[in-house]
Amino acid sequence: MTDLLLRNAMVLQIDADGGHVHLLHEHDVIIRGNRIESVQPTGQADPSHFGEVINVDGRLIMPGLINTHSHVPMVIFRGLAEDVTIDKWFNDYMWPLESNLQAEDVYWGMQLGLAEMIRAGVTSVADHYFYMDEAAQAVEKAGTRALLAWAIFGSQGTPMIERTREFVQRWQGAGGGRIRTWFAPHAPYTCDDGFLRASVATAKALGVGIHIHVSETMEQTQASVAKRGMTPVQVLQETGVFDVPTILAHVCGALPQDITLMAKHQTGIAHAPKTYLKLAMGMAPVIAFREAGIPVGLATDGAVSNNTLDIWESLRLMAMLQKDRAHTPEVMTIAEALYVATRESARVIGLPDDLGAVEPGYLADLIVVDLSGIHHQPLHSVTASLVYNMQPADVQTVIVDGKVVMRDRELLTLDEGEIVSQVRASTTRLAQRVPDQRIQSYNP
Amino acid sequence: MTDLLLRNAMVLQIDADGGHVHLLHEHDVIIRGNRIESVQPTGQADPSHFGEVINVDGRLIMPGLINTHSHVPMVIFRGLAEDVTIDKWFNDYMWPLESNLQAEDVYWGMQLGLAEMIRAGVTSVADHYFYMDEAAQAVEKAGTRALLAWAIFGSQGTPMIERTREFVQRWQGAGGGRIRTWFAPHAPYTCDDGFLRASVATAKALGVGIHIHVSETMEQTQASVAKRGMTPVQVLQETGVFDVPTILAHVCGALPQDITLMAKHQTGIAHAPKTYLKLAMGMAPVIAFREAGIPVGLATDGAVSNNTLDIWESLRLMAMLQKDRAHTPEVMTIAEALYVATRESARVIGLPDDLGAVEPGYLADLIVVDLSGIHHQPLHSVTASLVYNMQPADVQTVIVDGKVVMRDRELLTLDEGEIVSQVRASTTRLAQRVPDQRIQSYNP
Repeated sequence: MTDLLLRNAMVLQIDADGGHVHLLHEHDVIIRGNRIESVQPTGQADPSHFGEVINVDGRLIMPGLINTHSHVPMVIFRGLAEDVTIDKWFNDYMWPLESNLQAEDVYWGMQLGLAEMIRAGVTSVADHYFYMDEAAQAVEKAGTRALLAWAIFGSQGTPMIERTREFVQRWQGAGGGRIRTWFAPHAPYTCDDGFLRASVATAKALGVGIHIHVSETMEQTQASVAKRGMTPVQVLQETGVFDVPTILAHVCGALPQDITLMAKHQTGIAHAPKTYLKLAMGMAPVIAFREAGIPVGLATDGAVSNNTLDIWESLRLMAMLQKDRAHTPEVMTIAEALYVATRESARVIGLPDDLGAVEPGYLADLIVVDLSGIHHQPLHSVTASLVYNMQPADVQTVIVDGKVVMRDRELLTLDEGEIVSQVRASTTRLAQRVPDQRIQSYNP
Repeated sequence: MTDLLLRNAMVLQIDADGGHVHLLHEHDVIIRGNRIESVQPTGQADPSHFGEVINVDGRLIMPGLINTHSHVPMVIFRGLAEDVTIDKWFNDYMWPLESNLQAEDVYWGMQLGLAEMIRAGVTSVADHYFYMDEAAQAVEKAGTRALLAWAIFGSQGTPMIERTREFVQRWQGAGGGRIRTWFAPHAPYTCDDGFLRASVATAKALGVGIHIHVSETMEQTQASVAKRGMTPVQVLQETGVFDVPTILAHVCGALPQDITLMAKHQTGIAHAPKTYLKLAMGMAPVIAFREAGIPVGLATDGAVSNNTLDIWESLRLMAMLQKDRAHTPEVMTIAEALYVATRESARVIGLPDDLGAVEPGYLADLIVVDLSGIHHQPLHSVTASLVYNMQPADVQTVIVDGKVVMRDRELLTLDEGEIVSQVRASTTRLAQRVPDQRIQSYNP
């Protein structure tokens, strides 16, 4: 059993009720195994009693960030679908591009995206993609935490449900518990009701949740109502999806009755505002979700719409766009935004008592943030800087499950040089598009 | 006369008509004195003939970024006015805080902000603040380019017009031409018509332009129409402000007749979208401005609303928010966004033939950008990365007026340690607020 002393830190404390944040100064964080044992004033603990000591020198310790919805390996395609409508984005770019995908692309792409996220202080991701065995291998290697789900389409039929059932069982609890697995029918518009019901039955049997896209735009909602008299969220209710834990990606097209329905169930909403702006999808009503008691977590979505995997940017955009949409700066305060980024995001990925706080008993997924950069100076407000001034490069050290995965900006688990060279070797093949050769058609 | 060879670069070329961007590979940029002499394939120039050679090693050279509207020294107050309405922001925070301001605060604050901007690749700023002699001294020292304007209020009366007239004359052309000076009545809502007319007369006599806030929100526009039957933009027309060159900050509250009026005159609009979101001011209609032929430049505004001075973030937000507001991702393409960031921003600050392009005859205000960071990989699209993936730390080297001011992330003209320690020494005094002690009242 390893033990680790983080000495002399400023520690961000976020109240469990979401109302307040405060800072502890000159405190130590003591980690035993993979959990936080104690947060106590510096001076009480004897460094010589610890296997490893990191002198934090007054810098900030806060919970590692959580990306509640991404398609991480999609980084291999980033920059290839710009300035196009959502229909073209799917039909002429993304789905033709993904017909180039091979298992090994996912292995290297997942490592590339995990490296980018570690560098930005992201310690957990709920990922939703293809060839997820290779994604899981990459997570094992990276040492981070992940909730992995293999995206499947109704057109793939029952054999694909069986195949991903095996994936869920194969990887559940792997990486010493860092890896959890869920089920992932892609969306109501790509999965018919029978496929959704079969997915729910399998998820129930396995005791896992479902990670799914729903009502990504108001147009999708309207199309569903026109075609079948139900919103996409009502389709999830109707097909039993809400009988298991869920992560609902996006829900920009939520109607009031959808919010009531989601609030009744054990749902979490993943919020990826950069994608919504870039693809002009409309903005998800986070304030209305939260007022209804629905947990909302921060997300980046994939890098072909979000371009990066920077949760700091998602945090900033979430706060600013909610102010913008509410026509007042008094909503989505710094305290609330940080609560969403930490405790609420932990709740969305199903670990509310394990992640999102630097407190005894929580998992030791922590980051050390250096606020000495000139863009934070003079540091009148640490919490304002965390929401509005952060750059990924301000993250100095990253700890997941009690182990250091980045120390002083050096990645300890992944070989960036090898990853980049492996990914680059495939760029020409990956960038080819044969428009009629696509993995699905977008026609919600 | 110095001469400088930048060897083996990828060079960003932005067509003068705004339609296209392309890249030159393996090119040298030759600088003589403060201007670009040539951009030519690597191999033709003999490095031994140059006073200084920088091996760019395939990294990107592009025009230095331009911040067309800021209150740079306001960085000393950053983080002190969060989550409050615009009325409170002015009356309970900013204007009481600014009653603490001393000339020396501006000297150090300006250096702090210039250091932050150099690190982010910003080589020019149109600044609008107080104690501008000290701001000018800081620019002289930093080696950057600035269009400086001393903000004045109608309540200060004619003596202040005289005082800033002297400032304009004292500093015009200083720093070997890097410093230009304009006039800066604060806004129509803080300057009566007589004061605006007197400002125009003085600006005309000096042959300079006016940098002014106008129609910052639709509420300001409506209040002006209710009080006097004219929009704030119409007030500028009425008082002769459009008879001189202008930078109009914000104009979020533009009505169609305002757009027509601004298009008729030699105006430029400074666009600072982060401030608009954070203060819920509404979004300026950049696409409508540009369709009318009005030049728009990127800006950060001050750091108490924008929190940082990062023009990359302004660029990204401008592009994304225009897509969002237009309900289609097809507008404000990458090429157009980069055109706004470079040639159009140069036009807004009155230097369309000198800045904003890496071409022979242009001033040598250039940056070297390193796109090898993992958040850019694999680099399918350099131009997409510039708009959507950039972090300030990707800027490696900064050249202004032919001289290197940052090399390999090291600032060569400013002493960051001293600047930060000087600013920190005043934080307690600066952060005090006596609400009844304010420099102005906001009641547009």
